[in-house]
Amino acid sequence: MSDFFIPDLKKMRLPQDLKKLDFSQCQLLCSEIRQMLIDTTSKNGGHLASNLGVVELTLAIHRVFESPKDKIVWDVGHQAYTHKILTGRLERFSTIRKENGLSGFCRPDESVHDAFISGHSSNSVSAALGIATAMKLSGSKRYTVAVLGDGAFTGGLVYEGLNNAGKSDTNLIIILNHNEMSISKNVGSIAKYLSTLRTKESYHKTKNVVEKALDKTPLVGKPIIRAVKASKKAVKNVMLNSTMFEDLGFAFIGPLDGHDQEELEKGLIAAKALCKPVVVHVNTVKGKGYAPAEENPGEFHGIGSFEIATGNPDVVLPDSYSSVFGKELLDIANKDDRIVAVTAAMKYGTGLQYFAKAHPDRFFDVGIAEEHAVTFCAGLASMGMIPVFAVYSTFLQRAYDQLMHDLSICRTHTVLCVDRAGIVGEDGETHQGIFDIPLLTSVPNTTIYSPSSYKELKLCLRAAVASRDGITAVRYPKGRDNSLYDEKPDTNYTLKSSGSRLLVVCYGRLYDNVMKAIELLHNEGISFDVLKLVKIFPIEDELYKLVSEYDNVLFFEECYRFGSIAEKYSTVCRNIHSYAINGFIKHGAPNDLLDECGLSPEKIADRIREYYHG
Amino acid sequence: MSDFFIPDLKKMRLPQDLKKLDFSQCQLLCSEIRQMLIDTTSKNGGHLASNLGVVELTLAIHRVFESPKDKIVWDVGHQAYTHKILTGRLERFSTIRKENGLSGFCRPDESVHDAFISGHSSNSVSAALGIATAMKLSGSKRYTVAVLGDGAFTGGLVYEGLNNAGKSDTNLIIILNHNEMSISKNVGSIAKYLSTLRTKESYHKTKNVVEKALDKTPLVGKPIIRAVKASKKAVKNVMLNSTMFEDLGFAFIGPLDGHDQEELEKGLIAAKALCKPVVVHVNTVKGKGYAPAEENPGEFHGIGSFEIATGNPDVVLPDSYSSVFGKELLDIANKDDRIVAVTAAMKYGTGLQYFAKAHPDRFFDVGIAEEHAVTFCAGLASMGMIPVFAVYSTFLQRAYDQLMHDLSICRTHTVLCVDRAGIVGEDGETHQGIFDIPLLTSVPNTTIYSPSSYKELKLCLRAAVASRDGITAVRYPKGRDNSLYDEKPDTNYTLKSSGSRLLVVCYGRLYDNVMKAIELLHNEGISFDVLKLVKIFPIEDELYKLVSEYDNVLFFEECYRFGSIAEKYSTVCRNIHSYAINGFIKHGAPNDLLDECGLSPEKIADRIREYYHG
Repeated sequence: MSDFFIPDLKKMRLPQDLKKLDFSQCQLLCSEIRQMLIDTTSKNGGHLASNLGVVELTLAIHRVFESPKDKIVWDVGHQAYTHKILTGRLERFSTIRKENGLSGFCRPDESVHDAFISGHSSNSVSAALGIATAMKLSGSKRYTVAVLGDGAFTGGLVYEGLNNAGKSDTNLIIILNHNEMSISKNVGSIAKYLSTLRTKESYHKTKNVVEKALDKTPLVGKPIIRAVKASKKAVKNVMLNSTMFEDLGFAFIGPLDGHDQEELEKGLIAAKALCKPVVVHVNTVKGKGYAPAEENPGEFHGIGSFEIATGNPDVVLPDSYSSVFGKELLDIANKDDRIVAVTAAMKYGTGLQYFAKAHPDRFFDVGIAEEHAVTFCAGLASMGMIPVFAVYSTFLQRAYDQLMHDLSICRTHTVLCVDRAGIVGEDGETHQGIFDIPLLTSVPNTTIYSPSSYKELKLCLRAAVASRDGITAVRYPKGRDNSLYDEKPDTNYTLKSSGSRLLVVCYGRLYDNVMKAIELLHNEGISFDVLKLVKIFPIEDELYKLVSEYDNVLFFEECYRFGSIAEKYSTVCRNIHSYAINGFIKHGAPNDLLDECGLSPEKIADRIREYYHG
Repeated sequence: MSDFFIPDLKKMRLPQDLKKLDFSQCQLLCSEIRQMLIDTTSKNGGHLASNLGVVELTLAIHRVFESPKDKIVWDVGHQAYTHKILTGRLERFSTIRKENGLSGFCRPDESVHDAFISGHSSNSVSAALGIATAMKLSGSKRYTVAVLGDGAFTGGLVYEGLNNAGKSDTNLIIILNHNEMSISKNVGSIAKYLSTLRTKESYHKTKNVVEKALDKTPLVGKPIIRAVKASKKAVKNVMLNSTMFEDLGFAFIGPLDGHDQEELEKGLIAAKALCKPVVVHVNTVKGKGYAPAEENPGEFHGIGSFEIATGNPDVVLPDSYSSVFGKELLDIANKDDRIVAVTAAMKYGTGLQYFAKAHPDRFFDVGIAEEHAVTFCAGLASMGMIPVFAVYSTFLQRAYDQLMHDLSICRTHTVLCVDRAGIVGEDGETHQGIFDIPLLTSVPNTTIYSPSSYKELKLCLRAAVASRDGITAVRYPKGRDNSLYDEKPDTNYTLKSSGSRLLVVCYGRLYDNVMKAIELLHNEGISFDVLKLVKIFPIEDELYKLVSEYDNVLFFEECYRFGSIAEKYSTVCRNIHSYAINGFIKHGAPNDLLDECGLSPEKIADRIREYYHG
């Protein structure tokens, strides 16, 4: 590995100077970038395997198209690290996912080259069609390029987008980055279908004909269009077959070898020349160029720091809320065969791997398809099963209507295990779990538990399974239980009273911060009552009454302020002071972010001092 | 038309005795049912054309399958009127959509034959897969049948369901009721693709072979399976082609003539015999048997009452909030070519037909695809366009995550025109618009206007278009502006003060009810101040201050109570008494329902009397 390219990349005008490189220089650059990706993610965590897979593709896109005049939309932007490096963010790349550093996803306010925000899967076709349509309406002939993995194809939004894009008269190019992986192994029959395309001889033939035509035509233009059209028709006449994408009105190019720079660029040039909606199918290898990631890309999806030599990541912590949930659910399910577990492409992240291994017939990974997951649960529950859908707080947002209609109206009993509730940290504002409480409390017939320790999580999970009525959610944070205060768990509430007129209310892991605040204030002679809520919603009359009896009630929540639990108390109790989260939270270390939100022990103590009157 | 069948149907054990009819009796029964559908919907309103299209199909399903042991899931159950008639609800059929009468949609609590709730489109495959999976886990060999129109195929949830169902080892039968219409004319390339199937010779051939095989095999069983498999393979060898559904792992039967009883039943028997996931493609004619509806099915989608002779429906009222919105938007767009209008299959319902006619290049009907609609708007807006998405309140729920991620985080300016906000009446709990405020207030960077008259709607729409920041929503009710109190419109608020210590707060059409309450109370000598909010969120400090100055504040809202505007005020103001909607609202006349919710002039007056202290 030479140092030749690092200074070069720093001196280049990016991305435009990339076009000056020859293919052998490109190859060297790609090796250099791969090393950077491995070095940086080993320190900062982040998405390694998906980024290693698209190094050549990203370079090809920036050489064939002209960002930011042409717009590049990355679906789930965690595959856009190379894009960031190649668009002027090399020097800041070591700050990725750190507070005040680069975001781990695409952000239009970070760079003019990030055409669209991307944190949740499957939105790129729709966004790109909006951009392409705006270009068309303004008379621009520029291109919009959407890059999405086959995992995104398990999300229904992609089909809504394709349905509208196929017949649009726009310069829209959809690159299917096919690595046969979404987050863990891809699921469903669409994945299988795409895999048949991956190896389809017919399209290899098309491609070869295209390549030959391209070899003879150095300039982009009509000859290429004719060549592409002719070759495709020829192949079609032989095969009498077409892809799903062609059925939907797209031109189709591929499959291309995603690690062959020349083949990739020729394919993209051909796509450009068509001047109509095109799907370009690119085969890539997730984790390409780093043996541990190539061998087990699932483990390298979204990772904390890891050792470069062994590639040992710490994604599945045995000591985490997710694992405790997963093991407890397994224990419950071993004795009750009505329990069915569902995940939307997060088997390992949610701790469901234990259940999946023991009860494969009752385990369902539905792909990145939260809407389907909820309605599927509703169908199961309507037949007497007890579905448990484990889902990250931020992704539950995708199933709001299904919660409302398919579960809530008929009070159909389903257990939601809302993982990554609250601040998640480095993944930033598209992934913080601060909206599930406003969301769930607006859905009638919903009960929400927010345990403050592993022990309480286990109790709450059992209560949720046993409730047999409506939506029962158990929400818990990312990571481990750090609570120092080992207490008797409860599924309802715990009041620590010393007869004070001042009450502090909290739930979940903030209880631990409140307990730390007690210690901080102890020396100052400040004492107050503490109400730890566990079943946070609906609110029993008993609790309204209890809370109403205090002079002042300080309510601390790891939740967006509008729609918070404190708001609900405020309509009955006249003494509430609500401290919740004011808006989107950028990426950073969880404890730093909690402090910024006024929810660290120190900040909680500050608030209590304000209201303490001896 | 003989009276022969009506008494018969009343005496029959339903649906099981339907199996005893011969095909000519079936035909007579279908005519009888059509007449009932026309008679009843002409009086009660409801969905006529879609129901007329599926009379034979519904009968065939109940003759071939055995409900409720086999489960029938109707996608958007407004096509299930015949199903209701044939499953013991004939005598109550004249009460459909009336208060305490039958629901216009399927409801499990109404009949054991309604296997799943259905109000919003595209959920049937997922729900049916849940049911079929539960059957499989419990060792049942029973069938689950999902019936969905081609319109439902514009919604992404269907693909999430198909992706999981195709490879499932379940007895799941998906009937594609293909009428080339969703609500108005169907859109998108998937519709076009399905239409190619509709007329595909290959499958007509398959069908003929199947029929011939069936003719020779009176009993269901292995011979049929062999025949179906053999015939299909034969045709395939000739055509070298397959459907999208076969690519996804389904068997495929069809297209069948949806008005040929015998052909339909043979196709369904063949589907049963396969014992694996099957798609059955049925061609139907929307409005079949009633000339005005056949000629213009779009107008007969969801209708009020109409004249039988002319078929004149009143779906598009020129005197309605929707029409006033549509005309005002056209006026704005005539002078600003950045304005783009988007609808999710509700061109006429939302009043966008004026815009569509004048600016077809800037009008987009995306199908029943609210998620795509929002993200598409975000893409357009990122390029400087001003997208206006007109959507019913209840359907906006489907795009929660897209509002949050694709619009809110980057404060991307898009105008949401939230039609059918508040009580909508006869369509019942799946269609009431009472959750948009909890939903939208939980999305940061959102402004909400709730005009109380046509004049105010126009002003608010202009303010929303001009704001150029974040999500700007204008919400307004179904139907016409009945306000008696013609006042100067405002986009912020209006305070009517007489120096009282009692304040009544309201917004939208409830302002009119409050004004009527003033009249009711006038003779009793009761007076109070009234604050009409127009920009209801976010709340300016000025308003918190104004409201705080009263002794008691009664807050009336046509909105679900948890997440209401009153809740937000309560965190700052200590004097709020909130009167909002407690939960789901069944179907009935809007004014009756408002009264039940405590929001009629009389009920509002009652509340005011409680708090009036001279």
